[in-house]
Amino acid sequence: VSGPVRIALAGVGTVGAGVVKLLDTQADLLERRCGRRFTVTDVSARDRGRDRGVDLSGMRWHDDAVAMARTAEVDVVVELIGGADGPAKAVCEAALAAGRHVVTANKALLAHHGTALAGRAEDAGLTLAYEAAVAGGIPIIRSLREGLAGNALSRVYGILNGTCNYILTAMRETGRDFDDILAEAQTLGYAEADPSFDVDGIDAAHKLAILASVAFGTQVRLDAVHVEGIRHVSALDIEYAEQLGYRIKLLGIAGRAEGGAIVQRVHPCMVKFGAPIAHVDGVYNAVVAEGDFVGSTMYEGRGAGQGPTASAVVGDLMDIAAGRRSPTFGVPAGMLGTLPPAGMDRHVGAYYLRLMVIDQPGVFASIATALGEHRVSIESVLQRGRNPDDVVPVVMVTHETQEADMLRAVARIAAHPAVVERPTIIRIEAL
Amino acid sequence: VSGPVRIALAGVGTVGAGVVKLLDTQADLLERRCGRRFTVTDVSARDRGRDRGVDLSGMRWHDDAVAMARTAEVDVVVELIGGADGPAKAVCEAALAAGRHVVTANKALLAHHGTALAGRAEDAGLTLAYEAAVAGGIPIIRSLREGLAGNALSRVYGILNGTCNYILTAMRETGRDFDDILAEAQTLGYAEADPSFDVDGIDAAHKLAILASVAFGTQVRLDAVHVEGIRHVSALDIEYAEQLGYRIKLLGIAGRAEGGAIVQRVHPCMVKFGAPIAHVDGVYNAVVAEGDFVGSTMYEGRGAGQGPTASAVVGDLMDIAAGRRSPTFGVPAGMLGTLPPAGMDRHVGAYYLRLMVIDQPGVFASIATALGEHRVSIESVLQRGRNPDDVVPVVMVTHETQEADMLRAVARIAAHPAVVERPTIIRIEAL
Repeated sequence: VSGPVRIALAGVGTVGAGVVKLLDTQADLLERRCGRRFTVTDVSARDRGRDRGVDLSGMRWHDDAVAMARTAEVDVVVELIGGADGPAKAVCEAALAAGRHVVTANKALLAHHGTALAGRAEDAGLTLAYEAAVAGGIPIIRSLREGLAGNALSRVYGILNGTCNYILTAMRETGRDFDDILAEAQTLGYAEADPSFDVDGIDAAHKLAILASVAFGTQVRLDAVHVEGIRHVSALDIEYAEQLGYRIKLLGIAGRAEGGAIVQRVHPCMVKFGAPIAHVDGVYNAVVAEGDFVGSTMYEGRGAGQGPTASAVVGDLMDIAAGRRSPTFGVPAGMLGTLPPAGMDRHVGAYYLRLMVIDQPGVFASIATALGEHRVSIESVLQRGRNPDDVVPVVMVTHETQEADMLRAVARIAAHPAVVERPTIIRIEAL
Repeated sequence: VSGPVRIALAGVGTVGAGVVKLLDTQADLLERRCGRRFTVTDVSARDRGRDRGVDLSGMRWHDDAVAMARTAEVDVVVELIGGADGPAKAVCEAALAAGRHVVTANKALLAHHGTALAGRAEDAGLTLAYEAAVAGGIPIIRSLREGLAGNALSRVYGILNGTCNYILTAMRETGRDFDDILAEAQTLGYAEADPSFDVDGIDAAHKLAILASVAFGTQVRLDAVHVEGIRHVSALDIEYAEQLGYRIKLLGIAGRAEGGAIVQRVHPCMVKFGAPIAHVDGVYNAVVAEGDFVGSTMYEGRGAGQGPTASAVVGDLMDIAAGRRSPTFGVPAGMLGTLPPAGMDRHVGAYYLRLMVIDQPGVFASIATALGEHRVSIESVLQRGRNPDDVVPVVMVTHETQEADMLRAVARIAAHPAVVERPTIIRIEAL
């Protein structure tokens, strides 16, 4: 029987306190499952005096998390500081250099430096585990990397940001607009005071870059993710989507394109009611993985929060305790592919287009002409009522179109004097 | 670098052929992921001459699978013969006795002999892996056992039989009755010529007994599973369910009851539209696991078929190749709990009750009296139209009731001369 797993905890915010709480509450159960106990011997955080609802008195306190990672006599350093660079990165590097395993919930760090950190960990024979970084409590990294290890994956996509999904769900349920629901979400604590990280799709892009690396065995390429957020989605679009049989979701999608390229994109999508992911609402996350043998599989659960994130961190600690190891991103870091990213201009799909136009004779003909000249063919048009000389929404769904054509057509339409707002385009996903 | 993983394959039906095909198609990818190649060196099946669509010519053929398991110089025996006893069991026992790891897709075997086989494997330091036995391609065993290892689970439930889910989905979509859809499913190959194993809930019970063991760290107790199938669910019930806002699903549910008892039950359930599992249709399976830290998580995918099952088998082979090990049922076999099973008579929940009664004055009052005298209180009643002196359906939804009370009340109602068919009861699940 081995001794206890000694842990140094860098960062004790909500998640860190959750990890301490879990390890304490579940001590006997964890030991039954992996044969070892866990003990947090060292801890570092910003404010020593703050009440975190957990007892840190038996742990050695370090003012400097990096020094702790370098010197503490532990088996694992758990990094919960956050941020792509700065102390979080320094803590992970110091821990690996000192021969300690690392468990982190830090998606920004992995999205920016994942390949390099994986290389360092693997060269040293150490684990760099990050289940908590993607989709919170959902064990998606191990499902892709180990559960579906027999498959070549063709596509992986998901609802990766709970704040956006909460906002889109609330917009649909109440008919209210984005700004209004965002303000409410901020009051309720579901959205940050500065919401841009979430609502502009950046957080989802971090997670997608990590998922794509695991799914396709390629280097983490955050810079190759096409990112759009949800600010431009209006209550009107959500209402039209329902009429057309769709739900609007912010999805992160990674898939193989022609010539072995990998497309990574985060943007609002229209998803048919029949798709399982259309029914994932509120703060829940979900990931769908499509493999050549397994077909389509979906994983759903809470994507954030103290309990779910602590659950994922401790799952990783259990692997370390039991000596279960996999290459960080599914294949050894040195063998990760460097496949070319595919550009969005070659994306092919159907589009939802909403225009706010002055209801005058001949306007629709001009729009139709512009679309036709750019090879965009219209599958259906929705126009509610007439309102001569006033502004009315015109909603169209296109047949499959290449993105470059669609953007050129819409640019021309936007320049028409009767088109009074910037046109809204939402991609329709065949899932 | 280690040498190739040598495999003996016992049983080459659809799934076995799928495993051979996968290992062949994906050979390079698998090697990149785990550093080793896989080679099926030995094979045994019933009919040597049969065309299986895969090339077995380079493998040593054995007429006797048990002798193969005992003597073949391999690392792993993959058992795909099926059946709770007989050659399947003998193959697994012989393989473990000879120091070979075992991978199996055999739910009946594990449901009947799982605890004993796990003990043998663990005593010998070997892996007994069975991801393919539950929910096909969905990596649910590893998700419960490793991904959620930090949680005490309170409940695990799922759609565990694709045939039943196909039938119930088709009944809802077409309005046709059970026998009719079953016959069609048999023609399409979605149901066996003898369908009782599936439609009477036995297959789901096998899988639930395995899931419960992993979820709660208890010995596999198939004998403690309460089992009902779907034969008594009529098109009428499905129609009423929709009206009431429910879908009817055959669920396997295992949960903690008072005093640490574990309830295991398989029966048709009414599930609210809002529950994620209500939208899992057709041949898809899904499992929901509820943990104290992670909350509710759901896993969905194909529950059977060549590709998904081969995917699960190869996932297990990859673990063996990489040396990743966990206790078979989450805790070492010798430490598996022997918690008392809980009886269904103490089940508490709401019930759907459909009676076919002769439409006469006073009948409803008698029914209401019988329910009231057994402490069953009615939440709502549906009765479509009147039809004096002819048979009409009367549908009721009860408040929370103890099962023993409900059964006594219904027995009394069934004896009423105006009640012309056996009453249909379907439990309403709060999910």
